[in-house]
Amino acid sequence: MNDEISFITSGSVTAPEGFLAGATSAGIKKSHILDLAILCAESPCSTAGLFTTNRIKAAPVVLSQHRILTGLMNAVVINSGCANACVGEDGITDAYDMARLAAFKLGVSEETVLVASTGVIGKRMPMNLIKDGIDHIKVSREGGRDLSRAIMTTDTVPKEAAVQVTTGENQYIIGGVAKGSGMIHPNLATFLCFLTTDARVNAGFLSHAIKKAVKLSFNMISIDTDTSTNDTLIIMANGIAKNANNIQGNKREADIFQTALNRLCIHLAKKIARDGEGASRLIEVNVIGASRFSDARKVARTIVSSPLVKTAIYGKDANWGRIMAAAGRSGIELVESKIDLYIGDVCLVKGGHPETFNEKRLKDIMEEGELEVNLNLNLGKSKATAWGCDLSPKYVEINSKYTT
Amino acid sequence: MNDEISFITSGSVTAPEGFLAGATSAGIKKSHILDLAILCAESPCSTAGLFTTNRIKAAPVVLSQHRILTGLMNAVVINSGCANACVGEDGITDAYDMARLAAFKLGVSEETVLVASTGVIGKRMPMNLIKDGIDHIKVSREGGRDLSRAIMTTDTVPKEAAVQVTTGENQYIIGGVAKGSGMIHPNLATFLCFLTTDARVNAGFLSHAIKKAVKLSFNMISIDTDTSTNDTLIIMANGIAKNANNIQGNKREADIFQTALNRLCIHLAKKIARDGEGASRLIEVNVIGASRFSDARKVARTIVSSPLVKTAIYGKDANWGRIMAAAGRSGIELVESKIDLYIGDVCLVKGGHPETFNEKRLKDIMEEGELEVNLNLNLGKSKATAWGCDLSPKYVEINSKYTT
Repeated sequence: MNDEISFITSGSVTAPEGFLAGATSAGIKKSHILDLAILCAESPCSTAGLFTTNRIKAAPVVLSQHRILTGLMNAVVINSGCANACVGEDGITDAYDMARLAAFKLGVSEETVLVASTGVIGKRMPMNLIKDGIDHIKVSREGGRDLSRAIMTTDTVPKEAAVQVTTGENQYIIGGVAKGSGMIHPNLATFLCFLTTDARVNAGFLSHAIKKAVKLSFNMISIDTDTSTNDTLIIMANGIAKNANNIQGNKREADIFQTALNRLCIHLAKKIARDGEGASRLIEVNVIGASRFSDARKVARTIVSSPLVKTAIYGKDANWGRIMAAAGRSGIELVESKIDLYIGDVCLVKGGHPETFNEKRLKDIMEEGELEVNLNLNLGKSKATAWGCDLSPKYVEINSKYTT
Repeated sequence: MNDEISFITSGSVTAPEGFLAGATSAGIKKSHILDLAILCAESPCSTAGLFTTNRIKAAPVVLSQHRILTGLMNAVVINSGCANACVGEDGITDAYDMARLAAFKLGVSEETVLVASTGVIGKRMPMNLIKDGIDHIKVSREGGRDLSRAIMTTDTVPKEAAVQVTTGENQYIIGGVAKGSGMIHPNLATFLCFLTTDARVNAGFLSHAIKKAVKLSFNMISIDTDTSTNDTLIIMANGIAKNANNIQGNKREADIFQTALNRLCIHLAKKIARDGEGASRLIEVNVIGASRFSDARKVARTIVSSPLVKTAIYGKDANWGRIMAAAGRSGIELVESKIDLYIGDVCLVKGGHPETFNEKRLKDIMEEGELEVNLNLNLGKSKATAWGCDLSPKYVEINSKYTT
């Protein structure tokens, strides 16, 4: 039997066996939409996490980063509409109270409950609303969808997915939800993302695997170069899949798990990039021929983050000089006379020299919903891909009136 | 007699004795506006320069960076409308031809002529237009104004200024012109800026002094985090002021020269920041209480560069959490519970804790054309100031249609 990794239609964070979720409209946001959620497992889970590298950390990040060290968790309580950041010691008290209320509701130890928040910075968490909200949440196997909506801020669409993995020895699912869509420039961490699996893996293995996956996915997207105070990624594994053998220690199985996790994370990361604040299109930058991965990554990230590249793409203007300028300021050693640059399959620069090209073909490509920038540094064999979105007047509009 | 440093009304790059300038509409830009200029001196000048740190360097940067090593120059020929970048070896030939044509026109050695260009990347320089244009340029003591206009791209106003310095031993002028206003995030270099003085200083001293001044001025502004391929700053000194004693070697005189140069550069830098593409207001970020200058600088630059801070200020939205988040991601060690944050004189955060404040007063400040963000890290005695502008839908509009 061949190994198979396939996306599940309408898959979400509750697709793996034994995971439940639910959400409610607690009133944290003025509009009465879902804003408070719980993700939990029917049995304790090996758990790993990655958190923001911002020196100013929201209170729930402080709590979760500390608690996750035990590697065994039951649940996460999550809200949008209030970041619980920059409010001093009170924020810490509130985060611990949120976890305690959720633990009581679920009948688990409070030390096994994590917290994640997103929303406006500098406002106290409305704890009376949180308390009532947690009381009202009903968790179920169908709750993933509601959870994916409850964590949205300026996102226009929920982001959820799941992959089914079938090997000779194992059959399991990895599911996940994530949210963007502003203050996105993850660096060894990410926005909000919750992943689950019924595969049998320990916390150490999970921690290792998720770091690898994030390096190729969430750490390769940028919407606005602003890294949030609240970035949180949690992955939980309960090991109760029907066919669940230990994955760590079996190189072949571990590789398949890693591949499946990478694919899921890249899928969710691209969803976030495509739904960046005000975005009208997804930009994919492929850098090849770099001397080392870190160089390829720097160039890809710098191009996809450049406001001038992003505005040109918004305007469907093939102003490729800006792509070259962004590559040049990325901080790596490069040789201008070796660079090949393509937009889609149209070659614009060959060996550092402008090429004549089919303008009609390029114009058609600039109209598409997904734009590929392909850059060959011709210096080595390393490569990297980054994703982002165009910069539109709508980004400014959304962000000029966020708290007013 | 007291030392005096004072700005000259309508001062420009031709305010110091012995400097001439002129410009013409060569037709490099479609609209028939000034786009080609010459700055020259009646006698050879001690000359220093700073250039872009972008690895992709425009041809005129390659030429000027090489020639300036001799430290003795007569002129600079400058154009807007075409960057002469990313066009391969042809660009180098064109840059050398530009210098040769200007040298012939002025009757000086071509090795003493520098070149600077700004405009669209990836297009060949229209050398027939350059040749005719250089023929038509008439240089004069009144030509600074025309030069300041000829170097504009998306700038809405020319940037020029001059300071008069009078000490017991010396009486001289330092003048300058500069241009912004996109792809501005200088780093040990700057956009286009030409400075002149009739003070008696050698090239080594000038080079040292301009590096110091740029550190406090042009390197402290950011409009869009994109560093250009063409950044060039040239400073020329002819030593022919009526009262011109050697400045280097006299610590007191050197200090006064440095102070005057700093003031002029800061003045021009603020003009560039205020006229950033699509900008409606100047943002000044003062960071104090840092452990070291480099920390203060990083925090100030990160805040002033943050798209989320910039859009909030555009929307007159006092979303101060974004300022804290930007400080936190700047990469320095900071202690959240020590931070004090003010907008203007309104305290928003004290010791990391949100303060109640006069909302009417803050609303009034957010309406002003210049906005001050004041951040005390309370960790040490170092400080830095950075300048930038808000991010408006107009920035996107300008940059989405630059080459179409």
